[in-house]
Amino acid sequence: MSTGARWSARDGHPDGAPPVSEHRVDIEDAEGVRLIAFDRPEARNAFDLAMYRAVTDGLLGAAVDDSVGSVVLTGRGTVFTAGQDLREMAALANGTADPEAGTGFPALLDALQSFPKPLLAAVHGVGMGLGFTMLAHVDLVVLDETARLRAPFAEMGVPPEAASSLLLPARMGWQRASLALLASEWIDAAQALEAGLAVRVVEAGTVLEATMALARRIASFPTRATQEIKRLMVAAHREEIVAARAREEAAFAALFADPATNPGSGLASGLSGGLRD
Amino acid sequence: MSTGARWSARDGHPDGAPPVSEHRVDIEDAEGVRLIAFDRPEARNAFDLAMYRAVTDGLLGAAVDDSVGSVVLTGRGTVFTAGQDLREMAALANGTADPEAGTGFPALLDALQSFPKPLLAAVHGVGMGLGFTMLAHVDLVVLDETARLRAPFAEMGVPPEAASSLLLPARMGWQRASLALLASEWIDAAQALEAGLAVRVVEAGTVLEATMALARRIASFPTRATQEIKRLMVAAHREEIVAARAREEAAFAALFADPATNPGSGLASGLSGGLRD
Amino acid sequence: MSTGARWSARDGHPDGAPPVSEHRVDIEDAEGVRLIAFDRPEARNAFDLAMYRAVTDGLLGAAVDDSVGSVVLTGRGTVFTAGQDLREMAALANGTADPEAGTGFPALLDALQSFPKPLLAAVHGVGMGLGFTMLAHVDLVVLDETARLRAPFAEMGVPPEAASSLLLPARMGWQRASLALLASEWIDAAQALEAGLAVRVVEAGTVLEATMALARRIASFPTRATQEIKRLMVAAHREEIVAARAREEAAFAALFADPATNPGSGLASGLSGGLRD
Repeated sequence: MSTGARWSARDGHPDGAPPVSEHRVDIEDAEGVRLIAFDRPEARNAFDLAMYRAVTDGLLGAAVDDSVGSVVLTGRGTVFTAGQDLREMAALANGTADPEAGTGFPALLDALQSFPKPLLAAVHGVGMGLGFTMLAHVDLVVLDETARLRAPFAEMGVPPEAASSLLLPARMGWQRASLALLASEWIDAAQALEAGLAVRVVEAGTVLEATMALARRIASFPTRATQEIKRLMVAAHREEIVAARAREEAAFAALFADPATNPGSGLASGLSGGLRD
Repeated sequence: MSTGARWSARDGHPDGAPPVSEHRVDIEDAEGVRLIAFDRPEARNAFDLAMYRAVTDGLLGAAVDDSVGSVVLTGRGTVFTAGQDLREMAALANGTADPEAGTGFPALLDALQSFPKPLLAAVHGVGMGLGFTMLAHVDLVVLDETARLRAPFAEMGVPPEAASSLLLPARMGWQRASLALLASEWIDAAQALEAGLAVRVVEAGTVLEATMALARRIASFPTRATQEIKRLMVAAHREEIVAARAREEAAFAALFADPATNPGSGLASGLSGGLRD
Repeated sequence: MSTGARWSARDGHPDGAPPVSEHRVDIEDAEGVRLIAFDRPEARNAFDLAMYRAVTDGLLGAAVDDSVGSVVLTGRGTVFTAGQDLREMAALANGTADPEAGTGFPALLDALQSFPKPLLAAVHGVGMGLGFTMLAHVDLVVLDETARLRAPFAEMGVPPEAASSLLLPARMGWQRASLALLASEWIDAAQALEAGLAVRVVEAGTVLEATMALARRIASFPTRATQEIKRLMVAAHREEIVAARAREEAAFAALFADPATNPGSGLASGLSGGLRD
C-alpha cells in the first residue's frame, strides 16, 4: 500500500488487479487505513454486480496487504447505501439478469464474514437492506446523526439476508431485531446506538473524520495482535454465521422457485420509490 | 378467522374446538391479528390448568389459521399475570393436585417456543414468574409505564423455568438477568426497556392500543415472509432452548423428589401475599 | 465460616489451610457473604503468583463452605486491580520467572469459571487487563462512579485472555467489545453500565456497602436454589467458555514461542507507566 495512494476501481488496483467495468468505489490508503467509499451516488450507492465486485476486491486486497491495519467502509453523496440494486434483483427474480449477477452478493458476504482485520464503517443518511445488514459484519460502526437504517424484508415479502436472522438478534437484542425484521421499521441513529449497533453517534458531517481517527488508532497497534483479537472474537461464531446464511439462502431459493411467491414484480414496484425512504 | 370475531374460551372456538371448563381468556380476531387476553382478574390472571389450556389452544389455533398474521397476549384487569397459580402449584408439590394439572405448563411452553408467527405482548401492571419469563418467548413486548416484572425463584427456593436460565441472559444480558434471577428484584418498565426486554414503554392505559397497531402493521405484510423471518430467527436457538428447558425440568423434578427441598409449604405460604407484589 | 471472622491470607485460613507466603488479600465472612479484598495497594493490587493463589484459595474455600451464600470481590486502596503483574509477566516471557509463576492465572480462571455460587464485584478506580476481563465471570458487578476499565491487549500486542474474546462480546455486545479489545479504549462507569457490564453505578465511596447489601440479600435465599439458578445459567455457555480459553491460550503460546513476537520487552516497557492509567 502506498501511503496516501488513491485510486478508483475503474482505474484498476495500483498493484495490477484488473479494473472493474464501471466506476463504483474510491479507495484511499493512508496511515495504515484503507478507505473503501461506495461511489455511485446517482443510484444511491446501490449494489449491482460491479459494486459487489469492487467492494469485494477492495476487501480481499486489504486482507493480504501487510501495510493495511484496518479498513473503513463509507458512502459518497447523501447516503451510505440503498442496498441491493432492485432493478438488478428484479431481473434476477425474472430470469433476465446477467448470469453472473447473482454471484456478487455471496462473494461480498464471504469477504465480509472472513475479513481478517478490524473493519469499521462510517454511516450517514440511509442504510437500506444490505446497507443495514452488512453492519452486523462490521466491528466498529460510527453513525452520523443523520443515519437511519431499515430492513424492508417483511414488507417486500422476502427472507432476511446476510446472516441477519442470526446477527441482528445477536447485535441488537431479540426485541429490537424483531422490530427491525418483522415490522420493517426505520431505526434512527440514537436508536441504533442504544441497541448496540454502533459505538457512537457524531455530529452531522463529521462521521468520516471520526471513523478514520478510530481506524488509525487501531492501525497503530501491532497488526498481528489486532488480527488475532478479531480472529478469536469471530471464532466462537463463525460456524453459526455460515449455518444462518445457508438457511437464509435456502429460504430465498424456495421463494424464487415458486411462481406464487417469486418477488420479481414486487421488487420492480419497489423501484417506483416506495421503498426508497 | 372471522374478522371481528370475539369469543370466550368458555364458549368454545367458533370453528368447533371443545370449550374449556371455565372462562379464562377472551379471544378477539380482527384485521389479521388475534388478541388473547388473560381474563381471570379475581386471581390476578394466575395460570391454572384451565388457563394454560385456554392460552395454548388460542396459540395453536392461530398457528394454523391462515387469516392470522400476528398474535397479541395481554391481561384483563389491573395486571398482566401473577404467573403460576400458587395454590395449584402447592397442590402439585404436595401430590394433591388434579393428575392433569402438571401438563398445562409444559404444553404452553411447547406452544410458545414453537409458535410460528410474530408474537407480541401488551403488558401492564404486574408480570410475576411466568408472567415475566414468558416474555422471553415473545418477539415484541410493549410495556405500559405501570408494568413491573419479577422472577421470585431464588426467594421461593425453586429453579428457573421456561428456559429463563438461557433466555433471560440472552435477552437482558448476564448482569441484569443475574439481578432478576439471583436477587429476585423487581424490574420496572424503564429498566426492562433499557435491558432489551421490550421495544417500547407507553403511557399508562395505552399499551393495548399501541401493541395492536404494531401487530396490525406486521399482519399487513405477507404472512409467508413474516413466518419465514421468525422461523429463521428462531432456528439458530431452538436446540439451546429445548436443552435449557430439559435442564430446568430435571432440576425441578429433583427438588420435588427430595422431601427436604420440596417447596410445597413455601409455595403455600407464598399465597399469603408476600409474593404477590 | 465464623460469622464476622476476618483474616489475612498471610495468617492462613482459620480452618487451617496453609498461609500463602505474602499478604495479598483480606477475607471477611459475615451474614452469609464472603468478602475477598485484593490488598496489595503498593502494586495497585496487581496479580502475581501469591495474589493468584490467595484469591483462588478464597474462592475454592467459599465454594465448599455451606455457610457462604455469595462472594464479593473488591480492591483495597485506590484501584480495583491493575491486572497481571507486568514485572512477573515480563519474567515469564523472558524465561526468568519462578517456574510456578505461570500456574497462577489459569488456576484462578478455573476457579472463576467453575465458581458455583453467586459472585459479585465492588469495583472502584482502575480495572486494567484481568481487572476488567475477570468481571465477565462475575454475576453482579456494582461500579463506583470512579471505576474505569481497560483491556490493553491490542496496544501491548498480545491476544485477549480469560475467555474475553467470547465473553466481552457476549456481555457488552459486539461493537462495544470491539472498541474495548481492538481500540484498547478506556471505559468509564457510565459506559460500562450502559454496555451491560454492571448492574448499577453508585456514588463514590459507597460501592462496597452497596455490593455487600446485594450480596446479603442473595445470601438470605436458600443456597441450594441460588446455586441451581447459577448452575443452570452457566450450563448453556460452559463449553464455549472452555473452548474460547483454549483458543486464546494457544494464541498466547504461539506468540511467546516466536522470538519476533514475544512481548517480553514490550511488557517491561509497559512497566514504565504508559499502561498504568
